[in-house]
Formats: sequence, structure tokens, C-alpha cells
Amino acid sequence: MGMTLSEKILAKASGNKTVSPGDIVMAKIETAMAHDITGPLTVNTLKNEGIDKVWDNEKIVILFDHQIPADSITAAENHILMRKFVKEQNIKNFYDIREGVCHQVLPEKGHVLPGTVLVGADSHTCTHGAFGAFATGIGSTDMAAVFATGELWFKVPETLYFNITGELKPYVMSKDVILHIIGEVGFDGATYKAAQYGGETVKNMTIASRMTMSNMAIEMGAKTGIIEPDEKTINYVKTAMEKHGTTRPFEPLKADEDAEYEEVFEIEVNDLEPVFACPHAVDNVKQAREVAGRPIDQVFIGSCTNGRLEDLRAAIKVIEEHGGIADDIRVVVTPASREVMLAAIEEGIIQKFYKYGCVVTNPSCSACMGALYGILGPGEVGVSTSNRNFRGREGSLDSEVYLASPITAAACAVKGELIDPRDL
Amino acid sequence: MGMTLSEKILAKASGNKTVSPGDIVMAKIETAMAHDITGPLTVNTLKNEGIDKVWDNEKIVILFDHQIPADSITAAENHILMRKFVKEQNIKNFYDIREGVCHQVLPEKGHVLPGTVLVGADSHTCTHGAFGAFATGIGSTDMAAVFATGELWFKVPETLYFNITGELKPYVMSKDVILHIIGEVGFDGATYKAAQYGGETVKNMTIASRMTMSNMAIEMGAKTGIIEPDEKTINYVKTAMEKHGTTRPFEPLKADEDAEYEEVFEIEVNDLEPVFACPHAVDNVKQAREVAGRPIDQVFIGSCTNGRLEDLRAAIKVIEEHGGIADDIRVVVTPASREVMLAAIEEGIIQKFYKYGCVVTNPSCSACMGALYGILGPGEVGVSTSNRNFRGREGSLDSEVYLASPITAAACAVKGELIDPRDL
Repeated sequence: MGMTLSEKILAKASGNKTVSPGDIVMAKIETAMAHDITGPLTVNTLKNEGIDKVWDNEKIVILFDHQIPADSITAAENHILMRKFVKEQNIKNFYDIREGVCHQVLPEKGHVLPGTVLVGADSHTCTHGAFGAFATGIGSTDMAAVFATGELWFKVPETLYFNITGELKPYVMSKDVILHIIGEVGFDGATYKAAQYGGETVKNMTIASRMTMSNMAIEMGAKTGIIEPDEKTINYVKTAMEKHGTTRPFEPLKADEDAEYEEVFEIEVNDLEPVFACPHAVDNVKQAREVAGRPIDQVFIGSCTNGRLEDLRAAIKVIEEHGGIADDIRVVVTPASREVMLAAIEEGIIQKFYKYGCVVTNPSCSACMGALYGILGPGEVGVSTSNRNFRGREGSLDSEVYLASPITAAACAVKGELIDPRDL
Repeated sequence: MGMTLSEKILAKASGNKTVSPGDIVMAKIETAMAHDITGPLTVNTLKNEGIDKVWDNEKIVILFDHQIPADSITAAENHILMRKFVKEQNIKNFYDIREGVCHQVLPEKGHVLPGTVLVGADSHTCTHGAFGAFATGIGSTDMAAVFATGELWFKVPETLYFNITGELKPYVMSKDVILHIIGEVGFDGATYKAAQYGGETVKNMTIASRMTMSNMAIEMGAKTGIIEPDEKTINYVKTAMEKHGTTRPFEPLKADEDAEYEEVFEIEVNDLEPVFACPHAVDNVKQAREVAGRPIDQVFIGSCTNGRLEDLRAAIKVIEEHGGIADDIRVVVTPASREVMLAAIEEGIIQKFYKYGCVVTNPSCSACMGALYGILGPGEVGVSTSNRNFRGREGSLDSEVYLASPITAAACAVKGELIDPRDL
């Protein structure tokens, strides 16, 4: 019996010829990332354990994205602690407050290698599965073990294969596909399993759209959301490395043809409609038309889920075509990275957002985690292109968040209420 | 004996033929502004007093700039309260999270009228003295009285006249002039007096440079920092009104030729050098060369003092000429308004800031008041183009802030330490 893509990567990383679901393996880590929220605990754990040298100062990435520029004295103290650690350990890949969201910056800077194991002290590290890496989020103390040894144990997960076929209708984006899948599988339907996305629809997707799919794997409990690397993947990774003057060898693995999947889901998307994940659960997915008409207060376009150039482009197109946003609506736009920001200015997108009265922030995690800015007050309703809508996620416990694609979110901004973008 | 400019305005606004310093007058208010921090207390005071209708829904300006987009649930609640008030009272001039700093937005939108009395529930309301208005900051409860009645009592202040002559050297800006003046006069040297700036140097200044001068009048205790309106002023005000489709009549008053000033300061600027206001007092002003060499952590370019187009232009020029900013330096750039942001993108300035690794935020009060973002941690040293460097103003009580012009601040960003821009 052959191996799935995740099994192949874990076998290689652990020096095993084969591995099977349920096996416990010790895998070598190719890239390990911690950010300004999770990093301090990692660093303090290392210190408490008396470990004064990291395993590899070129494979560790430290990045600030959650509280940038520092939004409290505590945040500033955490930044100071991390900068000191970076200097002490001579960490080569350190991105201070200027770059943007970790899950966007990591691939942009060439840190995501197909066929390898990548861990991040952030739950949405599964995003990097889009590049054919076994990428998963781990806790800060586990990260301390990785920083110390370059290895981590894994229980080899079963793989759920999502065979996605058909062509997306206009106004339907990969965000709608993944929300639909999560609605079907449930928030815990893939717990500790590898979600693998394949099929012609995924093949036809841009890297950015694939990243949206992989990003949300954790929202059904999956360990990662992996996609077989293809030519697009290889090009992206090589270009990123060239651009940033690095060369790290990698072998883009593929699943064996006779790989054994725990379950194969056939997802046919020809008839898929724009959807919302309704409060207060990501799997509470409804067709946009079912909930249309509800007045809203804020729209957030950004995050590691949907803050890329194609997302901003899609959103501004809707706003422009309809002549602007509704009165009394706040629209917070956060490009996922400095690179995205610069490209969006180059295309005139940011100027248009400003012109129409949207607020464009510096690249950051922004409104996604209800702590930096874009916070919802009691009784407020937000539409968000991010990945979680748990009670209080973007602010008050009495606020509500509807997750949607950038096209649908922009349509809601235009209308001032929940709407299916086709009905604008 | 004739009247000074401030006396003329207060006489007119109070319906008196003449007024003298020390007189108590009841003056009609032409524009009254409250923002997201001060507005809620004003609104609650009105409610507690049972006042259910404001005096004039066209002369009140409500604007959010300190906590935008909302950075806490409390901020979001304050915003909700203010938006409700705006609706209830049908306030015509309401600027939600999208516009920027009140003292930049007010004149841009044509709310500042020469020859009138303008009050704002913000200490730097003296900024609008640059347009020949008697503009001053008042408390939130006083503002409630203004919202209710359209009038407020004033003790007519003595006027200190600053006759500023000579030509500024290259690398010296109006910020250096006002810091120099504050250093001479002291933080309380003009308490409850009107500071009036005149002379050829002021005449030759742009409106933006004059606003910097007026903005900081409060830092020597002055009630306002007034400048006689000239052709530049009238053009600015008329253009702003045209742009925003408003027409409000105004009469640009001038001081009588035989006006009596309490004191006339002759300020000759030919030999003025770049300066810093050193921790922890605005009047602790030293020549830049005296304190050069001190390593710094952050540079903030923005605020109602120095976040205008000419400031950003001057700062990026320095950074560009020297090929970028120092390693390990954070540079937070905050255009003062949406209009400034759009103009700066149009000129390619914002793109360059991003390219050189600066963080450009949405237009807001930003790092100036140590509460939104750009907060300094313990032991950190910041250079700031803003107006206050009191202990803890930009974050930790153990941080330090050096105030400087945009050119000097940019030079510090390039060098990574305090420096005179001529020594780069």
C-alpha cells in the first residue's frame, strides 16, 4: 500500500522508508516560525530549560505581525524580548514590524519548501500546506523543543482527500469552497487528520486561492491542509528564493498512486453559491441568500486567509463597479504583507480603497484576532474575510462575525447589509 | 489703544466694540469639535443635564482620530455612543474612522474660518490659529456647554508677539523655530496668553509650516498660536470650502496697527540650527549636535504637528538620499489625513517609505499619544515629530522621546541615533 503526501513527507523527514497512520515518528523540521504573541513563551521556555543555543539559526523564522507597531507596553516588552533573542542567537530570518502576516511573509521570502515539515507557533500554519509542505501549528513550548533540537514527534495522521472538481461560477471564490467543505465536514470533522485538497478545481486555482483553502484546514480540526505541488508551486517557491537571494534545496513530493485515504470526499463546485459562515461557528455555513438583508457595521478585508493581491483586486472591483460603499459602514482593509501593499499601490487599488472611504492599515493581523484594531463593539455585526467567527473573536462577546470571500465582503460593504454579491 | 488679533476676534464674537486683556466675555463659537476620546464625556454631560438638542448641527464637528479603527471594546463602545449622538442630533459634519487627525481634517474640510472663535475638545486646537482664528482647546464639559448654547466665556488673554525674521537654513524647519521659541519662553511662559506669530519668516512659510508653529503654542501654555491671515490663508480656506461644497462667510481680521502686546519677542532665525526637545519636557531644547550619538529605537513621523505632505516629502528625501534607514530601527509613518495619504501616494512617497522598510499606518493620531500603536517599551528611545515628550507620553514610563522636525527625525532613522541632519 502506498503513502499519502503527508505520509511521504513524514517518512522522509523521520528517516523511515514508510510510515502508516498512527505511527509515532520523530521528524526533522525544515522551517520553524514563532511570532510576537507565541515567541516570548518559546524563548522563556528555552531559558528556563537552560538551553542557550538554538539548533539552526537559518531555519528559524521570527516575525512580528499580531501587535504591530506595538499597541501596548506589554507588546513593546515582548518585541524587545524577541529582538534580544534574535541578536543573541544570531537568527538570520527576523522580520520586525514592517513585513506583515507570517503566513503570507513565509512563502514570499522563500521559507516554505515543498516536501518538508514546517511548524509554526500559530494555528494557521496549515496555510503552507498549499505549497506541498507538511505544515502545522504547534504550541509555544513544543516550539521551544524544536528550537532546541530541530525535531518534533508526530503521530502520523490519517488523510482525508478532498477531490474538488468543476468550475467556480463568477462571484464564487476558493473561500466559498473551503467554507462549504467545513460546513459539510464540521468544525471537528478532520481532527488530527491531514486534509488533502486535489482535483481539477484546485489545479486551476492560483497559489493565493490555494493558500486560502489550506489556511482554513484547522477550522475543521485538520493537522494540515496539503496540496500536491505542481509547476505553479515550484515557480512560486523558486521565484521567492531568487528574489530574496536564498537557495535551499527541496524535493516536491507527491502521493503514491495507490495511497490509502481514510475517506475521499467528492466536492463538485459547478453549482456552488456564495456563502457565509454565520455566528458563532465556522461550520455554520449558509448560502448568502439565506441570510441576506441583515444590516452590518463593519467589513474587514484582509488576514492570512484573504489579504492577498487577488483578494484586494476582487474586492475593489465590486466596490468600484457599484460606486462606493454604503453610508455608515466602516471598511477596514489590511494587505497581508508589505509586498502585497506595494503591488496593490502599483495597481492603484489602495488609492481606490481610500478614495471610497475605506481605511487601509499597515500590513498586520489587523481585525482578525480582536486585539489590534478594527474591534467590534457590543451589538455590532461584522463581515470578515478572515478565518474565525467564534463569539468575541473580533471584539465584544455581544458582537457577531460573518465570514465570507472578499467578493461577498465587498458586496456587503456596498450594500451595508449581508448580501449575495450576485444580487447587488 | 488698538487691539491685537485675538482681541479683535473676541470683541467681534462677543458683540463688543473693544475688549481688553482680563475682560470676561461671552463669545459666539463658529466651530466646535470633539473627537472619540473627548466626545463621549461631552455627550454624557449633555444627557445628564437633560439637554436634548444641540445649538447648531452645522457648526459642530465630530471626528474619530485617536483610536481608529477601534483598538479596544471600550473604544468601539465610545464610537457607538458618538455615532448614535450624531444620528440623533443630525450632526452634519461627522468624520468616522477614515479621515485622520482632527487638526488636519478641520481645515481641509473648510471648517476653520479666519476671524472666528473655534473650540475643540483637544489641547492642540490652537493649531487653527494658523488660519487667523482664535482657536483653543477646552474640556469636555465646557464643550457640552458649547454644544448646548453655541457660546463660551473667555478671559481675554494678553498677547505675546513673536516677530520672526530671517531665512531658515537648509535642514531647518518651522518645527525647529517653534521648539527654539518654546525653549526660550519655557513650558509655562505663555500660560493663558495668546501667542501671535508674525514677521517675514512666518509670511514666507507655507500653511503647513505655520500649522506646526500654531500647533505647539499650547506647549508654552498659550491659549492659542495665532497668525494673521494673508492671501495664502484665504486661498487655502476658500479652496477647502469649494472642494467640500460648503460656503460659510468669514472676515479675515487683522490686528490694529497700534495694538498693545504684553511683550514682543524678536526671533531672528538666520543662524538657527536643527534642535531636539529632549526628555522629558518640550522646553528642554538643545542643539542637535549637543545630543548627537545617542542610539535610538524608533522614529515616528506624523501627528497634527508634522504629518502633512511637506513633512513626509522632506523626510523621504533624507531617507532616499542616504539609501534607507538603519538596521534595527523602526520607523512609523502616519500621514495626518486621508487627503495627505492620497497625495503622498500620488507623489510616490508612501511607496518609498514602504520600500525602505518604514511602516505606514492609516491616518490617525498614531504613536503621538502612546495608546494606539507605536508604543515604546521600557528603556527605549524614540524620536518623534509630534508635540509632547512628557515621561511615558509614547509608552513606558522608562522610555524617552526626543521631539524633532521631520528632516531631523528622518536623519535619525538613517543613522540609527540622534544626529544633526547636516552631519549625515
